[in-house]
Formats: sequence, C-alpha cells, structure tokens
Amino acid sequence: MNDKEMLKAELKKRTAEVEAVVEAFLPEETGHQKTIFEAMNYSVRAGGKRLRPMLMEETYRLFGGNGEEIRSFMAAMEMIHTSSLIHDDLPCMDNDTLRRGLPTTWVKFGYDMAVLAGDALLIYAIETASKAFEKTTRPDLVGRAIGILAQKTGIYGMIGGQVVDVELTGKPIPQEKLDFIYRLKTGALLEASMMIGAVLAGADEEEIALTEQIASAVGLAFQIQDDILDVTSTAEQLGKPVLSDEKNNKTTYVTLVGIEQAHKDVQEISERAVQLLEKLPGKNPFLAGLIEMLVTREK
Amino acid sequence: MNDKEMLKAELKKRTAEVEAVVEAFLPEETGHQKTIFEAMNYSVRAGGKRLRPMLMEETYRLFGGNGEEIRSFMAAMEMIHTSSLIHDDLPCMDNDTLRRGLPTTWVKFGYDMAVLAGDALLIYAIETASKAFEKTTRPDLVGRAIGILAQKTGIYGMIGGQVVDVELTGKPIPQEKLDFIYRLKTGALLEASMMIGAVLAGADEEEIALTEQIASAVGLAFQIQDDILDVTSTAEQLGKPVLSDEKNNKTTYVTLVGIEQAHKDVQEISERAVQLLEKLPGKNPFLAGLIEMLVTREK
Repeated sequence: MNDKEMLKAELKKRTAEVEAVVEAFLPEETGHQKTIFEAMNYSVRAGGKRLRPMLMEETYRLFGGNGEEIRSFMAAMEMIHTSSLIHDDLPCMDNDTLRRGLPTTWVKFGYDMAVLAGDALLIYAIETASKAFEKTTRPDLVGRAIGILAQKTGIYGMIGGQVVDVELTGKPIPQEKLDFIYRLKTGALLEASMMIGAVLAGADEEEIALTEQIASAVGLAFQIQDDILDVTSTAEQLGKPVLSDEKNNKTTYVTLVGIEQAHKDVQEISERAVQLLEKLPGKNPFLAGLIEMLVTREK
Repeated sequence: MNDKEMLKAELKKRTAEVEAVVEAFLPEETGHQKTIFEAMNYSVRAGGKRLRPMLMEETYRLFGGNGEEIRSFMAAMEMIHTSSLIHDDLPCMDNDTLRRGLPTTWVKFGYDMAVLAGDALLIYAIETASKAFEKTTRPDLVGRAIGILAQKTGIYGMIGGQVVDVELTGKPIPQEKLDFIYRLKTGALLEASMMIGAVLAGADEEEIALTEQIASAVGLAFQIQDDILDVTSTAEQLGKPVLSDEKNNKTTYVTLVGIEQAHKDVQEISERAVQLLEKLPGKNPFLAGLIEMLVTREK
C-alpha cells in the first residue's frame, strides 16, 4: 500500500472507532418520547466521515491527553453537526429531501418532529458534554471546553455563518461576506474540535490559539476545495450533482477569484496549516495526513 | 396595601430587576449577523413575568448565595424559555401569529430566521451560562448547574414533554401521558430554575432534591390551574381566548377529572409545595408568596 492508501485504511478504521464512541452516548429508544429518540438516532447514524470528533481526538492525543472525558465531547460535536444538518434540510431552509442517499429527517419524521429533533440534539450535545465533569479532576478545563463548544456553535460561530448565508441566498455576495460565511459556517466547528482537544489535554494559551489558526485554515481550504470540485468534478466522482452552484447562480470562491487562483489559494492555505501544525509539540502523522487529505481531496 | 397588593408590587419590581439582568447578556445588534441578534432580542424582550429566573434567584438567596455567577444562569434560563416559545409558534407547530400582542418571531422575521433564532437562543443560553465559570471559585458547581440546565431542557425534560404533546395533538390523552407532558413541558424548567439556585449556593443533595420536588409540584399545580382558568375565566380576565381547549377538542386535566376535582387537586398540590418549602433552611416570604400566587392565580 502507498501512503495514500494507508491513510485511507486508517481513516476508515478511525471512523468506525469514532462511531462507536458517538453510539455509546445516544439515547435508548424507549419511553413516551420514543419518537424523538428515533429521529435523533436516525439522523446521527446516517453516516459521514466523523471528521470533527476525529480531529478533536487527534489533537487531544497530540497534547498528551489520555483521559475519558474527551469521549463526551467527541459525541457532543457530532450531535451538534447533525443538529445543524437536520435544520438546514427543512423546507423553510434548503428544502432538501435526501441526504447521503436517505430521506432527510423532516421527510421521514415530519416537519414538526424535525424541528424538535434538531433542538433536541443541540441541547443533548451539551447534556452529553457535561457528563465529562464526572470523568475529570479539572472541572475548569471541562467548563472552558463547554464554553468553546457553545460559542463556536452559536451566533459568533456556525449559526452566525448560517444566518448570513441564508440572508444572501440568490444574491451576489462580496468577497468579505463570503469569507465570513466560510469562516463561521464551515470553520467554527473545526476550530472548536481542535481547540477542545487542546484545552482538555491541558495545552497552554499559545498552543490553543495555534490549533484555532490551523483549524481555521483547514476549514477555509476545505470550503474552497468544495467550490472547485463543484466545477471540475463529474457527478460520478462527487456522488452528488455538479455545477449546482452555477445552476443556483450562487456566489462561490471560484466565481469570485476564478478557478486558477482558487487552486493556488487552496494550496497556499493548506501549506500554511501544515506549517503551523509543525509548530505544535509532538508528531502525529495521521493528523497531518488527515489535514492534507481534507484540503486536496478529489471528492 | 394588603398582602396580595404588596406581593404584586414586589413582583413588579423584581420582574424589572430580572429584566435588567437578562438585558445585560443579550447580544449587541451589530455586525454581519445583525438580523439574528435583532430576532433574538425582539423575542426575549417581548415580555412575560420572568418567573423562572426569579424563582432561581430567590432559591439561591434562600440558601445564602451571594455571588455574581447566578446572573448568567438567570439570563440563560429566560433565553431557553424564549427559544422554546419561538419554535412552538412556528407554522409546523402551533402556527401562532401573535404572542403577548406582538407578531410572533416567524411572522416578523420569516420562517427560516425564526428556526435559526430559536437555535441561536438555545445555544447562546449555554454560552451565557458558561460565563459563570469566570465568576466562581467552584467550577464543579457551575458545571453541575449546566448539566441540570441541559438535562431539564432536553429530551428528558421540556423538549421530551413537547414531543409527546405534539404527537398527541387532536387525540384523546390518557391521564398517565397528560401527567408526563405537564411534568416535563411545564415542570422541567421550573425544576431546573430552583435546583440551579440551590446548587450554585452550595446546598446539599437532600436540599437540592427538595427544591426539585417543590418546583415539580408548583409546575403541576400551575398547569392544572391553567386548564381551570380556560374553562372558568372570561376572555377579558385572561387576556386571551377562553374555552380554547374545548374548541380544540383537547384533553386537559379538567376534561379528565372534572372541574371540582381539579380545584381540589390544585389546592392539595400547592399546599404540599408550601409545606415542602418550610423544610428548607431560612425563610423567604416572597418565595412562598410567589409560589402561592402562581398556583392560585386568576389569570
């Protein structure tokens, strides 16, 4: 196997490991409120690469973390991500009926139940994260991690980006606002993932700030690559319709700066991320490989 | 002034005080995501008696609490309550266009923005509560309070009750399920309010359990009284349409046990709450008066 194949095999293994962690925190489907448990679990189990909890765990290990409390936060992160997808798919938002080949939550469980399932996962994520207090001798660090999780999810993070994106749908977007949307909507949860890993492992302020910068760069490169792939891929490669941005008359990084510049920028931003990663203590080739793969992926 | 008038005057004063606390934590309406800040603040400022944060603060004082960290939680509680109202009013839920005489959030800001404003307030409540870590020397207590807040808001609390209520809309509801809905949908946030007050003030386990029982009784009595008032009041007294439950063919406590038994039960449950309150250390006549007023109110 070459490096790329080895990384892919490792990634597959880690995804399964993360899924086992998330699964351990999902509610049991029993009792009067069974329907909401089913809707939550259906949506969380629908799949994905589980990149956010994986980045969190890898960062935690990089800083020498070896406790149990990280598990709650890994599960919480995936719950928050899923919550946002459920609400994004609603008829009043993107009105999507399929996600990863399955009916979206509102199609499967109804509009009202999908609103409640998104709400439920959002706050259950915090309930889950707060279980870490039982597994730590450093409640101050767990508290700080919860603060970061909430802030990067909320109006100064993911939801803030989502709001601006929704408001500008169908309108031309200036570069400055597109950067804002990418930084918050895509970047914020990646930043939270790496920062929480660092915080819980006891990293110092400088190191925490570094992980935030790395994740921010990764998020931006990831999103630009997404825009590039929408133009350059075939539908078969991507597993979803291509040229969707063009059809929707959507402003993207590619429509703003052109495809060549976009390629250059991805390259530059991802190199910066890898350089920053080298400043961190310890070596984690999987984390470096993961970041490189994320921003240079072909689908 | 008689006792009742004095209590009312005191209540008015305290409501204003709580509103100042909540206001201090609301986001500034500036930046790219201005719209969501406006939607959040509009909804929080729409009014109400602010009973939950008031109960929280009173319980905190009763146990000798005198710190600043309670303020974050008071604001957080009101944000969570408001978040639930925004989503309850959505077209896919109760489809309400007016609340407290004002257009509901979705009418004013659009369906998509109302979904996002509810999400935003839910997680901003946690961001706000976690600011208490900066104001305490007991991060373990703040952590426990966040855990209680999330749990009583989520699938084993308010949202769990809401799910069962939504599922049974228009259907006959057996007593057991109605109790469940009342206990969770109305009771859970009251329980969280008093429990968090107790926890942050350093109350012991027995005392915390007592506050939970008191709040649970208050929540149940409050909800039964609501059902009674829907049958016995005039629209003028109540400030909203009466006999709405009957018109909607809704199962209520009154339709299940009859009006006389409902009256007796409210009396019994509220007496139990006041008796339990007397077991707590210290005396707080305002808290006792507040609880009595809540369950015997005429509107």
